Amino acid sequence: MKKNDDIHYMQRALDLAKKGMGRTNPNPMVGAVIVKNGQIIAEGYHKKAGTPHAEIHALNAAGQDALFSTIYVSLEPCSHHGRTPPCADALVNAGIKRAVIASLDPNPQVSGRGLKILQDAGIETEVGVLEKEALKLNEVFFKYITSKRPFISLKTAVTLDGKIASWNGDSRWISNPASRKYVHNLRNVYDGIMVGIGTVLADDPMLNTRLDIDDKRDPLRIIIDGDLELPLESKIVKSSREQKTLVFTSRINNHSKAAQLQDAGIEIIELGGNPQKLAVKKALEILGEREVCSILLEGGAELNAYMIEHKLINKVYWFIAPKIIGGRNSPSPIAGQGIELMDNALCLHNVDMQRIQDDILITAYTGW
Amino acid sequence: MKKNDDIHYMQRALDLAKKGMGRTNPNPMVGAVIVKNGQIIAEGYHKKAGTPHAEIHALNAAGQDALFSTIYVSLEPCSHHGRTPPCADALVNAGIKRAVIASLDPNPQVSGRGLKILQDAGIETEVGVLEKEALKLNEVFFKYITSKRPFISLKTAVTLDGKIASWNGDSRWISNPASRKYVHNLRNVYDGIMVGIGTVLADDPMLNTRLDIDDKRDPLRIIIDGDLELPLESKIVKSSREQKTLVFTSRINNHSKAAQLQDAGIEIIELGGNPQKLAVKKALEILGEREVCSILLEGGAELNAYMIEHKLINKVYWFIAPKIIGGRNSPSPIAGQGIELMDNALCLHNVDMQRIQDDILITAYTGW
Repeated sequence: MKKNDDIHYMQRALDLAKKGMGRTNPNPMVGAVIVKNGQIIAEGYHKKAGTPHAEIHALNAAGQDALFSTIYVSLEPCSHHGRTPPCADALVNAGIKRAVIASLDPNPQVSGRGLKILQDAGIETEVGVLEKEALKLNEVFFKYITSKRPFISLKTAVTLDGKIASWNGDSRWISNPASRKYVHNLRNVYDGIMVGIGTVLADDPMLNTRLDIDDKRDPLRIIIDGDLELPLESKIVKSSREQKTLVFTSRINNHSKAAQLQDAGIEIIELGGNPQKLAVKKALEILGEREVCSILLEGGAELNAYMIEHKLINKVYWFIAPKIIGGRNSPSPIAGQGIELMDNALCLHNVDMQRIQDDILITAYTGW
Repeated sequence: MKKNDDIHYMQRALDLAKKGMGRTNPNPMVGAVIVKNGQIIAEGYHKKAGTPHAEIHALNAAGQDALFSTIYVSLEPCSHHGRTPPCADALVNAGIKRAVIASLDPNPQVSGRGLKILQDAGIETEVGVLEKEALKLNEVFFKYITSKRPFISLKTAVTLDGKIASWNGDSRWISNPASRKYVHNLRNVYDGIMVGIGTVLADDPMLNTRLDIDDKRDPLRIIIDGDLELPLESKIVKSSREQKTLVFTSRINNHSKAAQLQDAGIEIIELGGNPQKLAVKKALEILGEREVCSILLEGGAELNAYMIEHKLINKVYWFIAPKIIGGRNSPSPIAGQGIELMDNALCLHNVDMQRIQDDILITAYTGW
């Protein structure tokens, strides 16, 4: 029964952690629950980078009662003096008797150090309760902290016969309203949204978060635009004062166009090289340095293919609508040259499927 | 509780009916269970056209004990003198007290007549127990009996990104061994298997049933071949003595080639018209007249498109492998011109999904 209790309280810690989704980057989501005499006496979660960690919120709420209590925390308490003092020390100082931890810190430079502080102080510790769930919850952070590159999810919506548009380019709408709302919920928590210039020219999208909630947040717009073709009259340019937009290009040749885009609020970054084969990989390094931890890639087909060929995708969100449109010239979501032999196909892992009304959403991982 | 008993015994009748799957055409699958004093005293199912119906098997097994018993039958007992005498009369003569029927006969010319015979004889009747399941079980028969055209299921296997082959034509294998076995189980129960000549030229398939079971049965091979291009050295031609093959062509121009194909055991049917736009619809009428009740359509992409454009598909079996192959020139399962506006896409109904190991199988209906 004790094990079940541990799972129960850790689940609560994970649920609390989730409240910070999309708002804690570059930090992980963390939740903490303090339990004494079989009762939850305090809770906390990390809300935003630079503000107190989950454990501190919980300890503050518990006050003197934290003495001899058990704390459940969804990630190993930190051991370093960063933007806030080390949480492991705070747990020791508060007189915590037992600490249950879902997963160790994935950063190899600090992993296990917080745990050691607790153990050296005589605190009883247990690691690994709901570890799988905790790792999945912070998959974005764990990728970012270990690679300093954004976690990238490819999102696409296709007909059952694998088309992202008709031969004539019509694509509105493939997926149902519930699926499209799901995508806006993703945009609300991903740091950035990336598209190729072809998608901008074809669809003139806003790439914002359209949700009827109070604390929604638009992602950073990232446009891959080798030749600086982004139209001045596009919705993106017109709204760049309200929603930050980064354009990656090869080299600015048209300085007047560049100045007009910059005047509209757009930041342009030159990557050099061939405009047709832009070094998107280099762009991702720059984005990583800027603490853009997660990117939702929304196409088009050629950019998707580049990202897959260069092993830059971590996860896919694949919406399939139960519709058939046909057309030998109707486009599919992944273009490029493609793989020649089926044996060399990219095999996805941890495939999950769910219904979203009549649509099907498949999520899976590349393992990269 | 009585209702639950009815469901229980009808489920048994349906399970018995299924034993005839793929062997009763052009008759439906039917199962019958005779219950007396809360005990099953006899069972039966229809095994093959021309042999006794399910009710007769069950009545024979029950003998005198059928008197005052309840019979559960998955389809309305027949009222006509066909290849066998009317079952409704047999139920009356046996002294059945109560008859529970899953669904009425879908043939409008006889629907309700068997029921009336029972009611006129004073037998207590109930119709509609597990009706939905019974209708689904005999979906092939019900389509055939009402239209005299085969029930056609399009089967395809695609990568997650909607490709049926690489740009180089490689397609072995997209789906996993369990999915391919599933397809052989379909071939074992569908009357016919249809492909276009392009598929034969590209893959040189056998189109047989490869299952390690005793009573497997190969489907009739149906090749759509406007110009009579079927190679004499193809596996299909070489095995046409063992597995019947029908070739639909426009008009025989090369009489020597036709004679060689016929010598090999192949039947050729001329449809007239344009070899590039063969009247497959007419071929289906001919197949219907020959009591080919069900056809598994296994492509390729142009034939699939024709069949969809002409509203000739009833059901789809869509295997999706969690793989990405990419390629702007890699083919998708439905070619043709395609639909121009997403609003006019063919929307599928009764969509169901299941895992087959790591593959996903989506089944759905067109409603045609």
